Amino acid sequence: MSQPVDSAVSAVRTFIEQHRAVFLDDLAEWLRIPSVSAQPDHAPDVRRSADWLAAKLKETGFPTTEVWPTPGAPAVYAEWPSADPGAPTVLVYGHHDVQPAAREDGWDTDPFEPVVRGNRLYARGAADDKGQVFFHTLGVRAHLAATGRTTPAVHLKLLIEGEEESGSPHFRDLVEQHADRLTADAVIVSDTGMWSEDTPTVCTGMRGLAECEIRLFGPDQDIHSGSFGGAVPNPATAAARLVAALHDEQARVAVPGFYDGVVDLTDRERELFAALPFDEDRWLRTARSHGTLGEAGYSTLERVWARPTAEVNGIGGGYQGPGSKTIVPSSATVKLSFRLVAGQDPEHVANAVRAWVPGHLPDGIRHEISFSPATRPCLTPLDHPALQSVVRAMGRAFGKPVLFTREGGSGPAADLQDVLGAPVLFLGISVPSDGWHAPNEKVELDLLLKGVETSAHLWGDLAEHWRHAP
Amino acid sequence: MSQPVDSAVSAVRTFIEQHRAVFLDDLAEWLRIPSVSAQPDHAPDVRRSADWLAAKLKETGFPTTEVWPTPGAPAVYAEWPSADPGAPTVLVYGHHDVQPAAREDGWDTDPFEPVVRGNRLYARGAADDKGQVFFHTLGVRAHLAATGRTTPAVHLKLLIEGEEESGSPHFRDLVEQHADRLTADAVIVSDTGMWSEDTPTVCTGMRGLAECEIRLFGPDQDIHSGSFGGAVPNPATAAARLVAALHDEQARVAVPGFYDGVVDLTDRERELFAALPFDEDRWLRTARSHGTLGEAGYSTLERVWARPTAEVNGIGGGYQGPGSKTIVPSSATVKLSFRLVAGQDPEHVANAVRAWVPGHLPDGIRHEISFSPATRPCLTPLDHPALQSVVRAMGRAFGKPVLFTREGGSGPAADLQDVLGAPVLFLGISVPSDGWHAPNEKVELDLLLKGVETSAHLWGDLAEHWRHAP
Repeated sequence: MSQPVDSAVSAVRTFIEQHRAVFLDDLAEWLRIPSVSAQPDHAPDVRRSADWLAAKLKETGFPTTEVWPTPGAPAVYAEWPSADPGAPTVLVYGHHDVQPAAREDGWDTDPFEPVVRGNRLYARGAADDKGQVFFHTLGVRAHLAATGRTTPAVHLKLLIEGEEESGSPHFRDLVEQHADRLTADAVIVSDTGMWSEDTPTVCTGMRGLAECEIRLFGPDQDIHSGSFGGAVPNPATAAARLVAALHDEQARVAVPGFYDGVVDLTDRERELFAALPFDEDRWLRTARSHGTLGEAGYSTLERVWARPTAEVNGIGGGYQGPGSKTIVPSSATVKLSFRLVAGQDPEHVANAVRAWVPGHLPDGIRHEISFSPATRPCLTPLDHPALQSVVRAMGRAFGKPVLFTREGGSGPAADLQDVLGAPVLFLGISVPSDGWHAPNEKVELDLLLKGVETSAHLWGDLAEHWRHAP
Repeated sequence: MSQPVDSAVSAVRTFIEQHRAVFLDDLAEWLRIPSVSAQPDHAPDVRRSADWLAAKLKETGFPTTEVWPTPGAPAVYAEWPSADPGAPTVLVYGHHDVQPAAREDGWDTDPFEPVVRGNRLYARGAADDKGQVFFHTLGVRAHLAATGRTTPAVHLKLLIEGEEESGSPHFRDLVEQHADRLTADAVIVSDTGMWSEDTPTVCTGMRGLAECEIRLFGPDQDIHSGSFGGAVPNPATAAARLVAALHDEQARVAVPGFYDGVVDLTDRERELFAALPFDEDRWLRTARSHGTLGEAGYSTLERVWARPTAEVNGIGGGYQGPGSKTIVPSSATVKLSFRLVAGQDPEHVANAVRAWVPGHLPDGIRHEISFSPATRPCLTPLDHPALQSVVRAMGRAFGKPVLFTREGGSGPAADLQDVLGAPVLFLGISVPSDGWHAPNEKVELDLLLKGVETSAHLWGDLAEHWRHAP
């Protein structure tokens, strides 16, 4: 605890170097389990992933490891009390489920057969989020080894859910059900990223997420476009017109009430964002995109970090096979997701969308709309003392100043904040090029090990500074 | 030839009654061949269908039957000269390929396992077009049997193509290549329908068809909608906005130049259409639709028979599986078809669409557009003498007055008209409820046999009246 920085850093590094190979082998074993929570076929794999993780945490040294069932996929809970009863309690959050992935989506190799190419590990879940959960396992062992402790400096709890990629439908219930076990002074969310390989940053907030599927029904079956086309409403056309009406000419979301309650960016936040070394051309290459487009009056970073959006994740209707089929299709479907920022209420947004849809459909088109359980947005104050611990731990690992970002993606962190009444801090080492939700997802091995180091330094720093926090 | 009508009618009916069972068994055998020209996997089936038909026409008595290859699917040609060298020459046109069909599209039974339920024969191709080609085989035999002839009263030619459902890409070349064999005084197209079971009609024109696929490309791969959404153009949104821009608020096609050359309906044609016993509620039930929608200022019949349209046959982009996937998709595709009316040039329409698309896409969205070979529109004068023969033959078969319609669908009849310089007449017995291009396609057995009867009466009538035609 009172070692000089240099020797603490080098003790941690030595330990990590000794255990790196087994750590990576273990992670690869976990990544081989295709724990895709959105696809019912993979439910047994998500359960297997939970069992695997629980066993691995037991092996790591956590005296308590449990698999917590939900009406959907199970979560993993682990607890490692500190020998110091007055130590603060920290809850680490992550998820063990992954996005769908198939070789034919454009993967160079099997998404569930991890491979190392160069200094990168490729697999679905490598960065989002198995890699970032897993760095804590070696992190806590390095913390113990480097400090000569037998228990962590903080009361350490882990809650690793299994439905994050499906919108965490049962997460809030789970947290409420186990609230007495989960009490914590701070929540550390390891499901975000940092600015770049060269610029370590701490994230201060995440957008929320409301997702819906809108199904439009026209003729009771596909009908001949020659015999009937031009005289009956076409649900694919109706879907297109609905989507086209989602945004106005300023690329603002045109659903009345959508922006209700939005907490606007302060001048200070806009200055801080503008201070980051942002290279739009490079960002576009990372985004694999060929142009920017977004809400008028905001920069690209502001658009993805601090402004709410409406995005089409999928659209489909009629004949999509080879060649042509001259039909008026019977139905069409649109999958939309809305990213939400602090101040927006997902239920209010869902109601606004439900109220908006019917007025944009022609007579003769019936519709159904279903929202998945939403994820709330959240923000952490820049000057929070526990956030400063994260910044210091990361600074030791990276040997550089740490800056601040936000995260455009979404996680159920706000539920933890709501139910546990604890501040949420974000610790992630993924970089934008990691390809979350995309083919060829990867994690940078160097950064993964910096995550291990940060985790190794964090618990001591928190114990030192946090016990005096309000 | 000079028999009184009553005995001619009854002789034909007696012959048909005697041969009905074998005729239907043969048709079912043909319908079992899944000759789907749009799907490359079915290319061998389309060839098998051609061979089957050629063999059956030989068995019917046609002294010449040939399978004509094309760079795509083969056509079948057959010839049965009249013993009367001065007889007119008639070319019957139909097609032996069918639309795609799969049980899971909503078929009650296998689309390629014909079944009779009630007085209907269900199978893909039952009405469009195998049933309507096949009635000519028993028709010509009944003609011979009832008149005591050994050769038909006209020089009879059949050209049954194999790519109609794929837009007849090689048909015009085929017709040009064999123009000397195909010379005819009139073309009889048996690939249309009539007003209803109770109202026999002759069709006087077909719409043309231009089809295209527009592929839009955004990010080079699917990207995370949290990390990038709201700041880059989404090709699914772009596709939707493009489709939404296709029509103006009057439901007129908004592509500049689209209506160039359109031959407007005359007052007389509008009166004739209005004279048909049109029940919009019933039409909607046949269309399996729940509302009408079309170009302002035109009735439903005018919209489907005599006005050009733009229709979305399919749209797709992003994630369409179960659950959700929070991505900005990499690409989206729209399949459009344009129905054309007399006076419109498909090439001009294609150029107009190509010129229109880029102005409706945001920066950062790349596009490709490909048009399939087009089908031209055509119209036959109401007072043409050969058309009057069709009306009389149909009147004898049905024992009722015959009215006039147009056909909203499209066929390569205009190519025959262009290359052979012959008027095109339409003889079809299908009704709107037959479900062309839809699940559970069927043909009414009573009407199918009326088609046989009409065919049996037509050749004598044409020979009697047509040799004196201009």
